[in-house]
Amino acid sequence: MKKGYVIGIDYGSDSCRALVVDVQDGRTVASSVCYYPRWKAGMYCDASQNRYRQHPLDYIESLECAVKDALTECGKEVASHVKGIAFDTTGSTPVMVDRSGTPLALLPELSENPDAMFILWKDHTAAQEAAEINELAHSWPVDYTQYSGGSYSSEWFWAKALHVMRNDALVREQAFSIVEHCDWMPALLTGNTDPIKMKRSRCAAGHKAMWNAEWGGFPSQEFLSAIDPLFDGYRSHISNETDTADTLAGYLTEEWSTRLGLPRQVAVAVGVIDAHSGAIGAGIEPHSIVRIMGTSTCDIAVASYGEIDGRCIGGICGQVDGSVLPGMIGMEAGQSAFGDIYAWFRQLLMWPLYQVGKDALAEELSDSVIPILSAQAQELPLSAKDLVATDWFNGRRTPYPDLQLQASITGLTLGTTAPVIFKALVEATAFGSLAIIEDMSRNGITIDTVIAVGGISQKSPYVMQVLADVLGMPIKVSVSGQACAFGAAMLASVASGIFPSLEKARQTMNSNCAVKYFPSEARHAVYLQLYTRYKELGCFSESSQK
Amino acid sequence: MKKGYVIGIDYGSDSCRALVVDVQDGRTVASSVCYYPRWKAGMYCDASQNRYRQHPLDYIESLECAVKDALTECGKEVASHVKGIAFDTTGSTPVMVDRSGTPLALLPELSENPDAMFILWKDHTAAQEAAEINELAHSWPVDYTQYSGGSYSSEWFWAKALHVMRNDALVREQAFSIVEHCDWMPALLTGNTDPIKMKRSRCAAGHKAMWNAEWGGFPSQEFLSAIDPLFDGYRSHISNETDTADTLAGYLTEEWSTRLGLPRQVAVAVGVIDAHSGAIGAGIEPHSIVRIMGTSTCDIAVASYGEIDGRCIGGICGQVDGSVLPGMIGMEAGQSAFGDIYAWFRQLLMWPLYQVGKDALAEELSDSVIPILSAQAQELPLSAKDLVATDWFNGRRTPYPDLQLQASITGLTLGTTAPVIFKALVEATAFGSLAIIEDMSRNGITIDTVIAVGGISQKSPYVMQVLADVLGMPIKVSVSGQACAFGAAMLASVASGIFPSLEKARQTMNSNCAVKYFPSEARHAVYLQLYTRYKELGCFSESSQK
Repeated sequence: MKKGYVIGIDYGSDSCRALVVDVQDGRTVASSVCYYPRWKAGMYCDASQNRYRQHPLDYIESLECAVKDALTECGKEVASHVKGIAFDTTGSTPVMVDRSGTPLALLPELSENPDAMFILWKDHTAAQEAAEINELAHSWPVDYTQYSGGSYSSEWFWAKALHVMRNDALVREQAFSIVEHCDWMPALLTGNTDPIKMKRSRCAAGHKAMWNAEWGGFPSQEFLSAIDPLFDGYRSHISNETDTADTLAGYLTEEWSTRLGLPRQVAVAVGVIDAHSGAIGAGIEPHSIVRIMGTSTCDIAVASYGEIDGRCIGGICGQVDGSVLPGMIGMEAGQSAFGDIYAWFRQLLMWPLYQVGKDALAEELSDSVIPILSAQAQELPLSAKDLVATDWFNGRRTPYPDLQLQASITGLTLGTTAPVIFKALVEATAFGSLAIIEDMSRNGITIDTVIAVGGISQKSPYVMQVLADVLGMPIKVSVSGQACAFGAAMLASVASGIFPSLEKARQTMNSNCAVKYFPSEARHAVYLQLYTRYKELGCFSESSQK
Repeated sequence: MKKGYVIGIDYGSDSCRALVVDVQDGRTVASSVCYYPRWKAGMYCDASQNRYRQHPLDYIESLECAVKDALTECGKEVASHVKGIAFDTTGSTPVMVDRSGTPLALLPELSENPDAMFILWKDHTAAQEAAEINELAHSWPVDYTQYSGGSYSSEWFWAKALHVMRNDALVREQAFSIVEHCDWMPALLTGNTDPIKMKRSRCAAGHKAMWNAEWGGFPSQEFLSAIDPLFDGYRSHISNETDTADTLAGYLTEEWSTRLGLPRQVAVAVGVIDAHSGAIGAGIEPHSIVRIMGTSTCDIAVASYGEIDGRCIGGICGQVDGSVLPGMIGMEAGQSAFGDIYAWFRQLLMWPLYQVGKDALAEELSDSVIPILSAQAQELPLSAKDLVATDWFNGRRTPYPDLQLQASITGLTLGTTAPVIFKALVEATAFGSLAIIEDMSRNGITIDTVIAVGGISQKSPYVMQVLADVLGMPIKVSVSGQACAFGAAMLASVASGIFPSLEKARQTMNSNCAVKYFPSEARHAVYLQLYTRYKELGCFSESSQK
């Protein structure tokens, strides 16, 4: 085995993380995080409209910052032996690009236009477009949603692209194609940005853009034009080949070698969506579910071809051959809001302070509010008569997507205190998790192990214990807090040829994770009663109620 | 007409108010409020259990304080010409008394026992007992609930008495009878506390204790014993005569004349429940509804015998001959939480400050939070897709009592702010009001005028405008902020013989009220759509859904 180092780059919702990993033992030798400056300043977003956009310069600047900081930390000797780099990003986070593959917001005349920027995964402005796509797909000779759980989401590629084209004449005129964030980064760094030729991620295309080998790749031009003539020609503006994330996309251009302070001949892997690299980094296996738990959750499972047996699994976000591990079907599910719900409640409680100009005190309190709420919620008695909330503060992603769903809190009385509401909100997020796992099991995908990664799994023992109790399952927590970047580093090690396969890379580099939360049977029994009430508040599809 | 002054004493949930009124023109010459000291200190209550108890000494001390302050304000000349005094109190607020009519908490050994104290109207600890009473009454040869809207409430006399007797052996052993707060005050001040002989309020007995002339007064001993043998003998421990509140109960004892600084031969009227005296004070007429709007609402209407035509009106809290105006049927309805809901939300928002020892800042902000919320809520757009909340934070009193109901907030998203929730809470309280008026109309009691009294009507223009828009009705607001005490003063003027009838007293003393809030038709139309969603969240009985 060759010696060397690889870099995993993880683009989260707020920041870019660079992890430098020794391929010989999987040891992290340096790590750095840089936040997106424009995003941090609240630019281009409107929470009340569920509109979340990110500027391409945020990605470029944070990448340079994170890589340089990490290389400074590990020193020149290590930097000179970096062999490969791989990117995972949020998704579906597409952007409209021009003929050259340049995101439109990088053109001077559109530099401040949110519709010309990356449309972040949690942006829900394309609800109408998703509804139209679903209606058409369900009546089309080929139901292109069949491997997407039967429902195309407003969070995804085609819906978002159509939404900005319909609503923004300037963008419509300049747009030539659509590119996912995870595809743009390798394209940019390897100099292969032509949208017709650039490497496209199997993971992103399969899960977010209805790409499937069975019907020859992306949906037909006839179908796309039937959604809207604005898509005329788009089928040929997108490379129709897709690759798994262990594939070589190319090598760093001279410009980017210099900008990042890396040697030439650094291999760049095909991109992948963050949760999928996180699943690899956390050691996913059949019958386990890896949950990337942060502002939202993304839940990843894998199954052998034999287990799937040609079936279309309902209720999930998608099943894609090779989207996680080559040679297996990768499945994605998730909750469209998780930690975001706790942050929402904190922000609600801080509201009066901002009204009277006590911003400094609000900032000061902000860090302590959730720990205090957690400590008090933990002491509350648990009963089947407790408040029940739902977790659809940002719609429901799975099971059975319905992004128009809104959340409720029921059982309020004059005696209801903030910790009592917080307890119900935490339980609601856990019930949302149970609904996902229960539905997978109903579809024949048995889950017996939860592996948790992401901020919540590291920072919120109260939330994690409630989750274990609600699921009635032990929860392993990844020792590394950086499973996504670590998974990307493993992919880079294969793409750069250090390992002949991802399996070999995992054997050498894999990080272990241990069971940290054990469920209480007594509490699980009470939670099942509360869960029944939770389900009554929702609009679960008939098939999910069986 | 004789010259002179009368005193109206209004016992609210928190305080005792004394109003000195000139009978010649109804002019208020002095007014004073004293708060209940133990209650203010939060003693004997447990909001999480909906347990609210008040110590008899709170009533005595606040009475002496309020009367003396008012008399100091108006001077000795006026004080020497006081002819009558009348009491209105919250209700049903009963207490267990011994053979002498002494509230048990005045016995040294029970002085700190909450079960020996007055059980405040909003105490909901007797839910189980009320359920048993209803079940029995509905299968009894006489349905004793038929003039109570068909449902006996856990907020009422018999249920509360049974609850404390069942749960407290010390109280059970000492108890001989049950006395309403509005009956205890005249009894105490006239020296006629014998529970078998004391004057009982028609209003309280009829609305809260199933007293009706049709079945010979209170329910039979057989019925009471069938509820629970703990009631054995109780029918004969309670005077079975009841009187309207314009009746003379007696004259001040020498002791009380001295303690209050009043002349001898001051007439004391039979007691009345606050909302009913408030309705008198605000100028109630047929087809108007007087709403006493504070922490909760009490809604009073009157109808002629002809209009009622022997029917039992469903869904309300009761219909009682003479409970408001002699010679008419008085009807009571109400919402078990109104302003309390806004206070709950304020308290929720203040929670973090109390956790970090910023109590002083919380107190400082406390007064400004609701005005800021109101100002911002007022600026929000109104749409049929807005959040919908329900107002059952303390159960539902009417229509169709269900004190186990709890409140909900639906339509929450990550973009939902505090003013958005506040707007939904204010609208929920208005929807609760509409449900009451709609249900009365369905039962043949047409309401075309709303007369608002109480704290909310004076202090919350935003709430009042939303109410007008939701009801689609103009709202008159009583010019006097003290309609209950003013109504009591009118009753005192009749009981003391200054006026031959309440009608005559009202002609001379009546205060006018003017329309202050006009409804917007456009907003009313949108609110009716939101109201449909509100009703879907509730469990209105079938008859109410027709």
